[in-house]
Amino acid sequence: MKKPILALIACCIAQLSWAQQEDSLTIRRFADEVLTNGTAYENLRVLTKTIGGRLAGSPQMVKAEKWGEAALKAAGADNVYFQECKVPHWVRGEKEQARIISMRRDFVPPLNILALGNSVGTGTKGVTAPVIEVRSFEELEQKKDQVKGKIVFYNYPFNKKFIKTFYAYGDAVRFRGQGPSRASKYGALAVIVRSMSHSTDNNPHTGSTRYNDSFPKIAAVAIGLKDAEVLSKRIANDPGMKVFLRTTCQMLPDTIGHNVIGELRGSEFPNEYITVGGHLDSWDVCEGAHDDGTGCVQSIEILRSFKATGIRPKRTIRVVLFANEENGLRGGAKYAEEAKAKNEKHIFALESDAGGFTPRGFTTSMEPDKLRKVQGWSGLFLPYGIYDFSEPGGGADITPIHNQLGTPMAELSPDSQRYFDIHHAVSDNFEAVNKRELDLGAIGMGALVYLIDKYGL
Amino acid sequence: MKKPILALIACCIAQLSWAQQEDSLTIRRFADEVLTNGTAYENLRVLTKTIGGRLAGSPQMVKAEKWGEAALKAAGADNVYFQECKVPHWVRGEKEQARIISMRRDFVPPLNILALGNSVGTGTKGVTAPVIEVRSFEELEQKKDQVKGKIVFYNYPFNKKFIKTFYAYGDAVRFRGQGPSRASKYGALAVIVRSMSHSTDNNPHTGSTRYNDSFPKIAAVAIGLKDAEVLSKRIANDPGMKVFLRTTCQMLPDTIGHNVIGELRGSEFPNEYITVGGHLDSWDVCEGAHDDGTGCVQSIEILRSFKATGIRPKRTIRVVLFANEENGLRGGAKYAEEAKAKNEKHIFALESDAGGFTPRGFTTSMEPDKLRKVQGWSGLFLPYGIYDFSEPGGGADITPIHNQLGTPMAELSPDSQRYFDIHHAVSDNFEAVNKRELDLGAIGMGALVYLIDKYGL
Repeated sequence: MKKPILALIACCIAQLSWAQQEDSLTIRRFADEVLTNGTAYENLRVLTKTIGGRLAGSPQMVKAEKWGEAALKAAGADNVYFQECKVPHWVRGEKEQARIISMRRDFVPPLNILALGNSVGTGTKGVTAPVIEVRSFEELEQKKDQVKGKIVFYNYPFNKKFIKTFYAYGDAVRFRGQGPSRASKYGALAVIVRSMSHSTDNNPHTGSTRYNDSFPKIAAVAIGLKDAEVLSKRIANDPGMKVFLRTTCQMLPDTIGHNVIGELRGSEFPNEYITVGGHLDSWDVCEGAHDDGTGCVQSIEILRSFKATGIRPKRTIRVVLFANEENGLRGGAKYAEEAKAKNEKHIFALESDAGGFTPRGFTTSMEPDKLRKVQGWSGLFLPYGIYDFSEPGGGADITPIHNQLGTPMAELSPDSQRYFDIHHAVSDNFEAVNKRELDLGAIGMGALVYLIDKYGL
Repeated sequence: MKKPILALIACCIAQLSWAQQEDSLTIRRFADEVLTNGTAYENLRVLTKTIGGRLAGSPQMVKAEKWGEAALKAAGADNVYFQECKVPHWVRGEKEQARIISMRRDFVPPLNILALGNSVGTGTKGVTAPVIEVRSFEELEQKKDQVKGKIVFYNYPFNKKFIKTFYAYGDAVRFRGQGPSRASKYGALAVIVRSMSHSTDNNPHTGSTRYNDSFPKIAAVAIGLKDAEVLSKRIANDPGMKVFLRTTCQMLPDTIGHNVIGELRGSEFPNEYITVGGHLDSWDVCEGAHDDGTGCVQSIEILRSFKATGIRPKRTIRVVLFANEENGLRGGAKYAEEAKAKNEKHIFALESDAGGFTPRGFTTSMEPDKLRKVQGWSGLFLPYGIYDFSEPGGGADITPIHNQLGTPMAELSPDSQRYFDIHHAVSDNFEAVNKRELDLGAIGMGALVYLIDKYGL
């Protein structure tokens, strides 16, 4: 006989031990504080609306670091400090241009594009060339003899059949990452990549590309979904057409950035660390609200609300606003490097970098016995709509410390349906964030930090 | 030893019987169809953007009925018909006016209000009176001697501590429902009710009120949350202040409306019915996207995608777009009345009227053995993020048939965090709906209909 899942869940809750009942009350108190007095949403408003996009190396990055310092102090951190690291300094330059050039006399509106992060520009005169469309790398290989002197258009659609949209992203993002160099290998002049999104609008979605140094670096842009269809149809119906592309982006020498760190000192084991964070940088073309302003303000909120509700952690809770996740991961690398050099004891690292949407669970990377311990607390999360501890994962910025120190890690797993509508696009703005969804994420994260601090891992 | 919930869930899935594995594949096929070829979102766009608000008795209601008929035919219904019913005919009249009148010379912007549905107007000259603020009915009773000749302002805040926001609504909505008559009992001239919302904007949220015929009917309006604070502070700081209110709404004689019904005839038991629906009417001041355009288009989508994927139901699936949920529930009452009169056999009724957000479960009202049967299928829903079958409930429009015929009922239970931000306010528009969240709701509903049709209940 198969017992119904919910009966089992109810059974688990009914079986909460006395200690778990006490934990349930503490988490409830903490949750009430976040829901009624939380400052995450207002913090996010200030970050997104007064600073906005904050790419590594930009003047806005410097402002964001100062904002983070002030926000951590206001939240009641025992100490706040900067951890310096080198960051790449890529600049977008002038507004990108793209249009279809045709012998036909019909009017074709400009194509809506964004240069890919870290990409080189076309030069000020731009590139005008025929376009070859491919839907896979296999098709590129088949057509490699036709690529030379052309613009390669990777028109691989986001797979709608994945229920969790991060799988669709993982499936499609290789064209953004590897596409330019793989096309350059066969003599392409530039690359256009269909945006990694299933949005219903035409906003292009930027994001970083990685060149293979064996081949010439060529310009690379993302195109909005509607214009991807326009371009595809035009290629099919207008054999003589070309596309004009102009981008003036460039990579400047590395500059200085900082992880911004605030600590709540542990009362019993101050030299044991629990890291919780998000990344402070964002793409330049958006407010970086969901990616990853929400992760930053949720992490700060844990610190604030722990203090407000008298939760005094045994271990030191370190809130880290990481530098340069988007196009380098230098902040996360630096954090791991210093932790290793100082021989710090890190018992857990948690990140929120999958959007500030309504939370559903956590992805984790840790040993099976530790995971079982975490899953044993799942009844405490269910009242907040958090039920899914089943999938592997962890935040980009904490992956270095996980890899180098073996620190168990987890990432908040919010509902993913809306994320890639706005990811790396102009629509990733404050208005796309819901206050309560944001707060519930902070509650889930705070509950996990509270339990791991109390019981160890 | 307490087993972790997720291990139990995984265990349940692993234990899916052969029949359930087959069902899993059928549901997956159906889900893929909805996610890749679904028409719910486009149907919703047409309904909301070309018809808009469609209150019972309005010309838009008539257009919406024709839209529903056409959409059901396009989806492939075997037959489509109207079921006539009487509906109330309330009209809002001119744009409502409200402002603070003070001896002070400072400028106070007009207050943002909406008349409550079914309320009487103030008369064209409006009402100008001092305002007494209360935060509960208890406070009203305590101050009953001070109410005469005044406007009563119910400033009861939405309780943020409820994780599922429908509980906060259930807690607060009594002030909208009972407030006017309870104030009128003590001689109040009009009522202002704080909107039932925790939105961060200032949009007022309308909704129906119910007069007690023992007392004079007085004008009643909802006020936006920011203006509720403005008004409250003013009352405290400016004892001589009054408020001017003007509404010209009125209740006209009943008129004719229709439930719009489309059927997919059962192959084995055509005289056994499974009802699935939403309500076609909406408030006049918004597009009625989440309330309840989404429920209508999701229900239609089930019919379309069943046909597209060759799912031929044994029972007759009846998609019902109910008339007049918002201010009368006449459509739901009529549907139950006719089903009873015809002695129809209804084995299950399902509604979606809690928003088109990402689905999390179903609320249900049915006998325990039936509920256990449904919960036994929960492993089939988990891949779609649907895990919660624990709470009692059911749709408003199907409650009459549940009550009168004993039909087991369920309602889609989407994530509730955003719903009361937009409920009955101008912001309940097409833009607030996410295509994939809408589609996932339809998938969950379709899966439940498929299983109950196949196995009975």
